[in-house]
Amino acid sequence: MDTFEQLKAPLQAFADERDWDKFHSPKNLSMALSVEASELVECFQWLTEEQSKNLTPEQYQAVIDEMADVQVYLLRLATKLDVNLLQAVEQKMVKNAAKYPVNLVKGSAKKYTEYEQDEKVDDKGQNE
Amino acid sequence: MDTFEQLKAPLQAFADERDWDKFHSPKNLSMALSVEASELVECFQWLTEEQSKNLTPEQYQAVIDEMADVQVYLLRLATKLDVNLLQAVEQKMVKNAAKYPVNLVKGSAKKYTEYEQDEKVDDKGQNE
Amino acid sequence: MDTFEQLKAPLQAFADERDWDKFHSPKNLSMALSVEASELVECFQWLTEEQSKNLTPEQYQAVIDEMADVQVYLLRLATKLDVNLLQAVEQKMVKNAAKYPVNLVKGSAKKYTEYEQDEKVDDKGQNE
Amino acid sequence: MDTFEQLKAPLQAFADERDWDKFHSPKNLSMALSVEASELVECFQWLTEEQSKNLTPEQYQAVIDEMADVQVYLLRLATKLDVNLLQAVEQKMVKNAAKYPVNLVKGSAKKYTEYEQDEKVDDKGQNE
Repeated sequence: MDTFEQLKAPLQAFADERDWDKFHSPKNLSMALSVEASELVECFQWLTEEQSKNLTPEQYQAVIDEMADVQVYLLRLATKLDVNLLQAVEQKMVKNAAKYPVNLVKGSAKKYTEYEQDEKVDDKGQNE
Repeated sequence: MDTFEQLKAPLQAFADERDWDKFHSPKNLSMALSVEASELVECFQWLTEEQSKNLTPEQYQAVIDEMADVQVYLLRLATKLDVNLLQAVEQKMVKNAAKYPVNLVKGSAKKYTEYEQDEKVDDKGQNE
Repeated sequence: MDTFEQLKAPLQAFADERDWDKFHSPKNLSMALSVEASELVECFQWLTEEQSKNLTPEQYQAVIDEMADVQVYLLRLATKLDVNLLQAVEQKMVKNAAKYPVNLVKGSAKKYTEYEQDEKVDDKGQNE
Repeated sequence: MDTFEQLKAPLQAFADERDWDKFHSPKNLSMALSVEASELVECFQWLTEEQSKNLTPEQYQAVIDEMADVQVYLLRLATKLDVNLLQAVEQKMVKNAAKYPVNLVKGSAKKYTEYEQDEKVDDKGQNE
């Protein structure tokens, strides 16, 4: 069964029991989601990249809890806007594959807009 | 099947094909996730709460795409740190149920630390 | 005297006394700044826009503290990267004035890229 | 003259000319500020800490522009909520000096709550 769909109902029940549904407009949920994403960033902000790969058990549990909070608000937003997250990810992967062709981006972290610019420069070069 | 687990392998393959895995330290992935969360916030920042519930088709598609991007980076982080997102959410829901008891928080959006303070004040009042 | 410049030295001294300067790479400072920005968002996430204009004294002080934290990290980053914030704002205001011409954007919150598209459509229309 | 105060009027005029003031509730401005903070994070997300200290001229200009955008929204919020940013920073620095005493935090990036806990443990140890 689709895990995303399976989690929506208990989260809706949790909000309903507390009469919190009235606060959960999409606008507000996007704010709450970004706040949780920043609490995740906070776990890593003073660590080196190497340290972020070797968390202590206490750090690891804190990270898992913040990841769960992000997921919870993403699922709440998906419920409110009637979004199927599995389909959304699958469709986005198709778009991303087109936006970042392997032969152009391999090993580089430049943004896709920069590739488009590079490509235009190349095209111009070939035309001259 | 667990949807979260099912999506991890194709996302890893996408990163490997582009030789992007080397950029994907947990620290960096937390940054990328928070950037995508903010792109979601950007969709809503000038809308009223009411408008955020009634998106145009163009706005709706933009929101779905940003939600997918958040989910993708959360899954990448889950892969890197060997986190089972389904379990993480289920465990967090148990914690949240204890942190926000229905009888204390119903209809209010105060943070749980404020409830703890209120409770202490109440306790003190009852003791006197 | 330029307030921004005036605040840089005491903030540097604060970090030096605690031997925190070693954590303050521009990358890490950008993370800390975004975390503080989200703590500011957290103050407003469940409030209506109307309520956000009429804060209680307690909410107001919390907001001021978070705004100060954002400003502190922005000043730390400006110190580390040798940026003059006054000049940066003045130069950005010139760019923004060009990006958002009054006659095109008045009363609308659409992003400037959307205006560019609209303009192209208009140009096309006039050419036909 | 106080630079912060000096910048508020031209930014208000910029918003007024475009009839954008109506969008600038404190809630919305906090969202816009956090979005700009994330665009700053985006400049650094795939760079190493070392690379973030040695930006290319193009990267450096992009970072300055994003820093300016953060400052602009912080000033807009300060205008709307009648906050004096200079005073806010000065008062926060006094609070932070008390929260992070040099002898407890030197060379460590632990959060102040962790210090409080450590201190309690130490106190307990000494009492026994």
